[in-house]
This record gives sequence, C-alpha cells and structure tokens, in this order.
Amino acid sequence: MEVFIEPIARLINEFSKLPGVGAKTAQRYAYRVVNMPESEARAFADAILGVKQKVHLCKVCGNFTDEEVCSVCRLRDRSTICVVKEPKDVVALEKLHEYKGVYHVLHGVIDPMNKVAPGDIRIRELLARIAEGGVNEVIMATNPDVEGEMTAMYIAKLLKPLGVKVTRLAHGIPVGGELEYTDEVTLSRALVERKEL
Amino acid sequence: MEVFIEPIARLINEFSKLPGVGAKTAQRYAYRVVNMPESEARAFADAILGVKQKVHLCKVCGNFTDEEVCSVCRLRDRSTICVVKEPKDVVALEKLHEYKGVYHVLHGVIDPMNKVAPGDIRIRELLARIAEGGVNEVIMATNPDVEGEMTAMYIAKLLKPLGVKVTRLAHGIPVGGELEYTDEVTLSRALVERKEL
Repeated sequence: MEVFIEPIARLINEFSKLPGVGAKTAQRYAYRVVNMPESEARAFADAILGVKQKVHLCKVCGNFTDEEVCSVCRLRDRSTICVVKEPKDVVALEKLHEYKGVYHVLHGVIDPMNKVAPGDIRIRELLARIAEGGVNEVIMATNPDVEGEMTAMYIAKLLKPLGVKVTRLAHGIPVGGELEYTDEVTLSRALVERKEL
Repeated sequence: MEVFIEPIARLINEFSKLPGVGAKTAQRYAYRVVNMPESEARAFADAILGVKQKVHLCKVCGNFTDEEVCSVCRLRDRSTICVVKEPKDVVALEKLHEYKGVYHVLHGVIDPMNKVAPGDIRIRELLARIAEGGVNEVIMATNPDVEGEMTAMYIAKLLKPLGVKVTRLAHGIPVGGELEYTDEVTLSRALVERKEL
C-alpha cells in the first residue's frame, strides 16, 4: 500500500524539483495545497503558467521582462552597464535602490570545465551594445569565484581597446563582519586592496 | 521602479503562502519556475489543479483519497480504528509499515479557545462507525498537547459505555533521546508511566 495517493504523490514530486526542497518539505507544501480553497489553488497554477507565458528576455539587456524592452533599459542611464551572470543578480543589486545605470545579463559565465565557451553566453550582445556608442563604464559584477573572475577578465580584455572604462566590484571584509571569521582568501584580498584613510 | 516584474511578483506571492516560505525562498522558487521548460511548468500547474480536482475525503475514515472509499478502509483490519487529528498524521503512522488497522481522521481537535466544539470535528462519524459493530479497539492518536489530550479524553468517555477498548499512544523519552535534553513534562510522564523490566 502506498503512503500517498497518486495525485498527492505527483504534487509532492513536482515540489521536490524546487531548489532545496526535500521529501518532507515537499509533503508539507502538497498538503497545504490540498487544504487550499479551489480558487487559491487555481491562482497558484495560473501564476506558474503565467511566468512561462509572459516572461521572456529583454532584447537589450537579457533580463527577464514582460515587455519587449524592460523598464530599466527604457528609463535609466544607459551610459553605465553593469554586467551580471543571472537575472537573480539584477534583483540583488536593484534591492539596494542605489545603482542608476542599466544591466547586461550574460546568462552564464565562461566555464571550460562544463564546456561553456565565450560564445555560449551573451558577450556578443554586450559588444553590440557598446558599438552603438554612449557607454562610458562597464561594471563587471560576476561572482567572485573562478569562473566569474575569468569571465570578468575576458570581457575586460575585449572592451579595453574600445576605450570603455571597465571596473569590478570591490572585494573585502563584509560590513559588520569579523576578521576572525573571514575566510583567508577574502582577508588577503582586503589587505591587498587596502585604502588610505 | 519595482524590483520584480508583475508575473514574477505574482508567483513569488503565491509561493509565500506555503508553510515556512519567506520572501527569499519564494523568490528562489519563482526563478526556478521561470527557468523551467514550458512542459515542466505545465506539469507543475496540472499537479496543483489535480489534487483539487481528484482528492476528497474518504466517506468512511475522512482521510484524503481519490476513490469513494480509500484503500486502507477497503483492504485492512477494521476491528482496530486509530483516531488522528489530520491526514498528515495518517502519513506519519503509515510510514512505519507496522499498523494493520484502519483510521479515523477528525479534521481538528476540540479547542474551546478557538471555538472548536465536539460537534465541529468528525466525532459523530466515529460513533456511527462503532455502532455498525465489529470494532474491538480504538487507539487515540491525537497530539500530546492540551487540545489533543482533551479530545482523547472526551472521545474515550463517549466510547467506554459502548464496550470498546480505548487506548492512547504511550508518552516517554524519545528513543535515542537524552534525559538531559528531554523537557520536564515528558520526563515526568516517562517517570509516572515507568515499566517493570
């Protein structure tokens, strides 16, 4: 005898595909849905289908949008482009409400181990944007891991001859962090990149 | 400018309704769905609608089923009924693969503070099942909290005159647990209900 009946087992299986969701959590989520009013479950299902139907990539920056060109590309300062790996990174930066420029989402980073070559990510599109002119600065905001650094270096090398200023997010000790608990690589970078007070 | 576009914001909102899901987790889930192939998103939405369309309460025990009478009620020993608060509790017990009897799901417990009276939970249906005869034992497996204990006592009092044996799950120190970390109430119950070796 199965512990779960088929429709519930199926939903548990779907929830298990979400990041970080194990069997126990998927089960809790599924039971929540079983107990939802029909209208709420319908709204949930519609929202899932909605993102697949309405969300696509902005044809300028490659971020998710439900328009042809996203509102960031339409309304903000196009002279500064911040280059990120994924749409999630745009969200992280936008939450600061500080950056006034536009973005360029690569949808990946150069990663030879996993056979991701420069031609597989949106570098060509970035070069095309810069060729159109009006760009003063490109901020490389890929993650500070091996692939992120490699990608930042690679793109910087391509852009330098075009006369564009290329910058990189600073490394160092997190604000409020403690030296004692900062990993060695970060601490060493913080030391090398020390600033005069 | 909003950080999330409308379709994604809507899906984040839906995921936030799941138990224990905060803004950050809902966002991760939503981005996973945005990145899913269309077919997978459709399967997910269908699974949600599926549980609402196919799952209802077994007309005998009140557990979730996609049939008229659930397979536990149809195929197992009906002389023992285990009374639980919710369908989830059936899942917890079924995972043991040990219990051979049937269940009765109350869909709640008596809770005067939240205005849940005995008439609001499936006690009437339990009495009707016992009136049909053939039941030797009723195991009260409501939670060991105030409302669960109260409900167990209340039902036991109703069943005693009918000549049915009523039992309660044992309390005590969890297997593998340590005395030092066992809460006082549990430890005191374990002491009172000590067994001769």
